[in-house]
Amino acid sequence: MSAEQPAQAGTFNVGLLGYGTVGAAFAELLQDRAQEIKGLTGREPRLTGVLRRDSGSYADILEGSDVIVELMGGVEPAREYVLAALLSGRHVVTANKLLLSQHGEELIAAAAKGGAQLLFEASVAGVVPVVRVLEQSLAGSHIERVHGIVNGTTNFILSEMERGLSYAEALAEAQSKGFAEADPSDDVSGRDAAAKMAILARLAFGAPVHLDEVPFEGIEQLQGDDLAYARELGLGLKLIGTAERRDGGLSVRVHPAFLYSGHPLASIGGSFNAVTVESEAITEVTMSGPGAGGPQTASAVLGDLVSAMLPPTGRRAPVKRLPLLTDIESAFYLHMDVADRPGVLAGVTQALGEHGVSIKSVLQRGMGESARLVMVTHPVLESSMSAAVARVAEFDFVRAPPRTIRVIEEEFV
Amino acid sequence: MSAEQPAQAGTFNVGLLGYGTVGAAFAELLQDRAQEIKGLTGREPRLTGVLRRDSGSYADILEGSDVIVELMGGVEPAREYVLAALLSGRHVVTANKLLLSQHGEELIAAAAKGGAQLLFEASVAGVVPVVRVLEQSLAGSHIERVHGIVNGTTNFILSEMERGLSYAEALAEAQSKGFAEADPSDDVSGRDAAAKMAILARLAFGAPVHLDEVPFEGIEQLQGDDLAYARELGLGLKLIGTAERRDGGLSVRVHPAFLYSGHPLASIGGSFNAVTVESEAITEVTMSGPGAGGPQTASAVLGDLVSAMLPPTGRRAPVKRLPLLTDIESAFYLHMDVADRPGVLAGVTQALGEHGVSIKSVLQRGMGESARLVMVTHPVLESSMSAAVARVAEFDFVRAPPRTIRVIEEEFV
Repeated sequence: MSAEQPAQAGTFNVGLLGYGTVGAAFAELLQDRAQEIKGLTGREPRLTGVLRRDSGSYADILEGSDVIVELMGGVEPAREYVLAALLSGRHVVTANKLLLSQHGEELIAAAAKGGAQLLFEASVAGVVPVVRVLEQSLAGSHIERVHGIVNGTTNFILSEMERGLSYAEALAEAQSKGFAEADPSDDVSGRDAAAKMAILARLAFGAPVHLDEVPFEGIEQLQGDDLAYARELGLGLKLIGTAERRDGGLSVRVHPAFLYSGHPLASIGGSFNAVTVESEAITEVTMSGPGAGGPQTASAVLGDLVSAMLPPTGRRAPVKRLPLLTDIESAFYLHMDVADRPGVLAGVTQALGEHGVSIKSVLQRGMGESARLVMVTHPVLESSMSAAVARVAEFDFVRAPPRTIRVIEEEFV
Repeated sequence: MSAEQPAQAGTFNVGLLGYGTVGAAFAELLQDRAQEIKGLTGREPRLTGVLRRDSGSYADILEGSDVIVELMGGVEPAREYVLAALLSGRHVVTANKLLLSQHGEELIAAAAKGGAQLLFEASVAGVVPVVRVLEQSLAGSHIERVHGIVNGTTNFILSEMERGLSYAEALAEAQSKGFAEADPSDDVSGRDAAAKMAILARLAFGAPVHLDEVPFEGIEQLQGDDLAYARELGLGLKLIGTAERRDGGLSVRVHPAFLYSGHPLASIGGSFNAVTVESEAITEVTMSGPGAGGPQTASAVLGDLVSAMLPPTGRRAPVKRLPLLTDIESAFYLHMDVADRPGVLAGVTQALGEHGVSIKSVLQRGMGESARLVMVTHPVLESSMSAAVARVAEFDFVRAPPRTIRVIEEEFV
């Protein structure tokens, strides 16, 4: 794929810094979605410059860009490039949590001075929209606490350790699946999560928090038998980041913590992230989703890019009419009140089969002269199910109208 | 409380239509948060007019307002008032799902014509920010499906029925707790959820969907024994709204559905709402939180109000420095490798007690000459716990440095 294209009128020119896993995924997603975004914003986003490790001139890229997308990582030269873009009035979209957690105030001041937007949804919790929700939906709220699982690598390792693997085995598994870098120290030490909590604390409380001010503990020291003993006590282990008001100040920290199985964060497995925001007025809002992965992070970057392109009003795309379907496939629960006599089950299953309804599980219970016959079917069109049920209802051994309720079959992550 | 104040310079004048549960909660929250919002936006929001059932003139309120907050409900005269505000260039914040799901296109067109924003986060899923996430974070995504629990009343009733109550008992319970209206028909019929799914489908797919096009089934017909039988099959019941792409078209629908216990929506209990958004790039994002209640809905309305007040750039409040605390109370897991002889447990508990550490649960396991002593403590300051552990480590019967891991104690909804 040739990522770069010449600038044109009617386009929105995107300068991309960095072409690693996320950068490449972003370039691909941008191309896939360019026409849809044009429909939404009136302008077609185009990659007009890419700064790679060994090619490209930042001065040229900046000159030709309406927005800079910084996905190179690290503090320098990312800081210098982002500052230059903001001061020149260009919006910046970045996923760089180390930069934001150490130089956030300087970048925010530069954005204000240049009249530009600094957007960084992808810097925390991948595609989970916690940055936007804190900045906008909850802008009027008095937030008491933000806490959650903000590092997918360590959550994956802990999930594997819960299954019985040692720390070293779980880390190797994470590396082989691409969830951990060859050098995983930023993740497993808790530093990556600490940077994200500094960013979230700034958003939640409007107070500057520097990465150096966030105490963190990682998961390298954990022993498998700690997890086993804790399991006997009904506890599961997660690496938890917390930012909260306490006694007129703030506490921002990252450390491993056991959770009882009823806690909403206890069920967040694998490389997923989840963040809960609490305030008196809202009680709590929890957001969860994939926390790692090139396509997911690229999707969060693209969301920010679209925000940068949109005027404050008139955000809706032109409408298009799509057909609305009504006859949908679904599995069904089917409840029948039947006479308790031979041939009933055979008659029902044959009638269902004639309409293409196949049975996944059956529960039959005798109740004197009558019986309850309860089934769950495999997925079938509603029209077929209705026809099958109508046929079943005609049997003389069926004593009341059969009842159906849909069943959602799929298992989630 | 006198809700109305005269208009002033430097203020942002809010005209409120409707003063029921949500309207009153909004007026109170607005007063509480006015100074914070001024810090964030530069202008102080003030209620300059309130239209009640028996007092107030809409023409006067509109004239004196920068924004109209519509919380009166119903289609007319809400539609007429919202159209007039938008066409006059005033932003409108509304929680009116019936209005939006039946006249959404007309309202969106009026907003575009008037150059005004139409904001309606509070119309779907209370404080769960699904509207903003669909409109902004996922604006660049090709969404495949949105589904979830979008009616808190029915979810509460179903949760109670799972506990063994009949439908009538559960409904009475919901009414006594304020989760259901005296006339609950819009909720229990599924029509309220259908209106919300029409709104979400419009946002997710950019295609107009009218309430009349959304087939819905409610929960009035459910039998308690259906729930009991299904439980034997490992299934729990929820009222599920779905909007998805199917075969080049859309399916938007609401109906009761059984879920297996591993499904993420299966664990959403009581009056909570939850919505999952799925696309190929993001996999899935789930958001959950309180779906009903005056303060929660008012909080979502306030978030939209702040959005309407903010310029597109420079959204950050002036920073204020807050102290960062580090010595935090927490419960702890404590693992000790000890000699298996009399007096060990007594020595340890006494040493812990001297530092104010009290014990919640203990697990002791003999292993020949040594033993593992594992405890979970009640919450205690980290400094106290460190001192206690240092004291324990000095005992000659302690054979390795004790290990501690924090425990998050609280039980969630």
